[in-house]
Amino acid sequence: MKVLYAGHPSKWPEYRSALTNAFAAAGLTAELSDDFPAAEVDYIVYAPNGPVRDFAPYTRAKAVLSLWAGVEKIVGNPTLTQPLTRMVDRGLAEGMTEWVTGQVLRHHLGLDRVITGGLGWAPQVPPLARDRTVGILGLGELGRASAEALARLNFNVHGYSRSPKSVPGVTCHSGPGGLSDVLSVSEILVLLLPNTPETENILNAETLALLPKGAVIINPGRGALIDDDALLAALDNGHIAHATLDVFRIEPLPPEHPYWTHPKVTVSPHVAAETRAETAAEVIAENIRRSKAGEPLLYLVDREAGY
Amino acid sequence: MKVLYAGHPSKWPEYRSALTNAFAAAGLTAELSDDFPAAEVDYIVYAPNGPVRDFAPYTRAKAVLSLWAGVEKIVGNPTLTQPLTRMVDRGLAEGMTEWVTGQVLRHHLGLDRVITGGLGWAPQVPPLARDRTVGILGLGELGRASAEALARLNFNVHGYSRSPKSVPGVTCHSGPGGLSDVLSVSEILVLLLPNTPETENILNAETLALLPKGAVIINPGRGALIDDDALLAALDNGHIAHATLDVFRIEPLPPEHPYWTHPKVTVSPHVAAETRAETAAEVIAENIRRSKAGEPLLYLVDREAGY
Repeated sequence: MKVLYAGHPSKWPEYRSALTNAFAAAGLTAELSDDFPAAEVDYIVYAPNGPVRDFAPYTRAKAVLSLWAGVEKIVGNPTLTQPLTRMVDRGLAEGMTEWVTGQVLRHHLGLDRVITGGLGWAPQVPPLARDRTVGILGLGELGRASAEALARLNFNVHGYSRSPKSVPGVTCHSGPGGLSDVLSVSEILVLLLPNTPETENILNAETLALLPKGAVIINPGRGALIDDDALLAALDNGHIAHATLDVFRIEPLPPEHPYWTHPKVTVSPHVAAETRAETAAEVIAENIRRSKAGEPLLYLVDREAGY
Repeated sequence: MKVLYAGHPSKWPEYRSALTNAFAAAGLTAELSDDFPAAEVDYIVYAPNGPVRDFAPYTRAKAVLSLWAGVEKIVGNPTLTQPLTRMVDRGLAEGMTEWVTGQVLRHHLGLDRVITGGLGWAPQVPPLARDRTVGILGLGELGRASAEALARLNFNVHGYSRSPKSVPGVTCHSGPGGLSDVLSVSEILVLLLPNTPETENILNAETLALLPKGAVIINPGRGALIDDDALLAALDNGHIAHATLDVFRIEPLPPEHPYWTHPKVTVSPHVAAETRAETAAEVIAENIRRSKAGEPLLYLVDREAGY
């Protein structure tokens, strides 16, 4: 069995080690390389920033196993005929939950003025989390994990997903009316939707206007979820108080982009959703084991839905 | 029944309203004022920054009900013969938990460089919380609530208390050896001990040296827990990476204090442990109800132990 590593070349040493360990732990005997003849490859460990663009030559490949949670860069690839799985790794959900919780608490507590020293001795006690409403757009694995963590901290959490979902401690909404309902109450809004034609620019002039005045936006999801010009306008006219953005349409964010210098924007360099090699390799190994055993693959992408 | 409000005068309007509501909800009929003849008072709602210093004239008083969690400013008062209760209010524990969790995540995630823009596009992914050890000194109501919240976020939490305690998900230590054990593993250390002769300067040159190099200190407990000169020395020599301090020996922190301008110190103006009038009033009402019914008071202070 030949497993091709087709992630970013810079991560090959890290993944060679992690995948070797995970295959051994799963009882899999596999050859692992970043350079096999295409026709000999059984499984492709894939990332959009790796070398593979054309899947047609991989005639033996039983599956393409993405290291990334977001698959919008591959799902429309016409050469891809193999089953595609996306990454849902324990480390990813945990790291995202920690990042989202930290950013929500930062804004909830008003930490920026304390950290920068601008507050001085002027005690301003924030409301309790139970009196603060947080909206989460997207209730997939990452949105759900973040929503649950915030609910456990007593935040009043409202979640939106396209199809109806149920999350303990979270008021769940769905459908177009559900989106408006969540936006209209969200003092802090977290974007964790997948990037699909339906979600592109989901935060635009019209939907931004539905948020309460002074709302804060946190985007660790996908850059394309936001109409950047509309967000900048809403920040400038004071309707939106702050935006903390971890993802962008072009990354790295170009030096001339207005987000870099906008006083109401925090630019975070795409760190919220970092896949950890060790935990990701366990998911890859489990899916190869399932494929060989004829069991259903975990996290199989619905090519029509786009995620 | 006459209940004297002897908290800070500035908070009288807020507490008049909150106590009136809480008494009604508890079915208590009481006169409430900030100005009764001492000999007529049945219960004293007290704060150290209120007007009462001498409790001898309050000959009818059945209890002194403190609005503050820390009672070190009253516990040694020789005129105090009445039972003393300290405040353990739901809002206090919740607010403290939120503040501690936010500050721990801020340091865990390295948010300061992102917030101040100093990071640029240089992704640095932090370890997962499960690989980060947080020490909590003090496992009273506030320490316990904070420790549990951090454990639920997967942090590896070690707690220290004078007497042995058990907290779900937290590795608990006690006694002098226990203190060293917690300090030696704490990448992030949170101080939530009461202020007693035993805990004064518990963080000094000797105990600071037990912390791992690069440790971060968060103090929402009491200013006197820290030997300030020893902390400044440990920050200057690089052994301690940062200190976030919410409490000080003198408050407001004097303008000339070196903490204000030290690049490795964040000064927070005593906001972590703010008692909320609404939830505190419920505790006061419950204790008056208990006193009248002959039931044991909640949160009675052990005058010998000092808390």
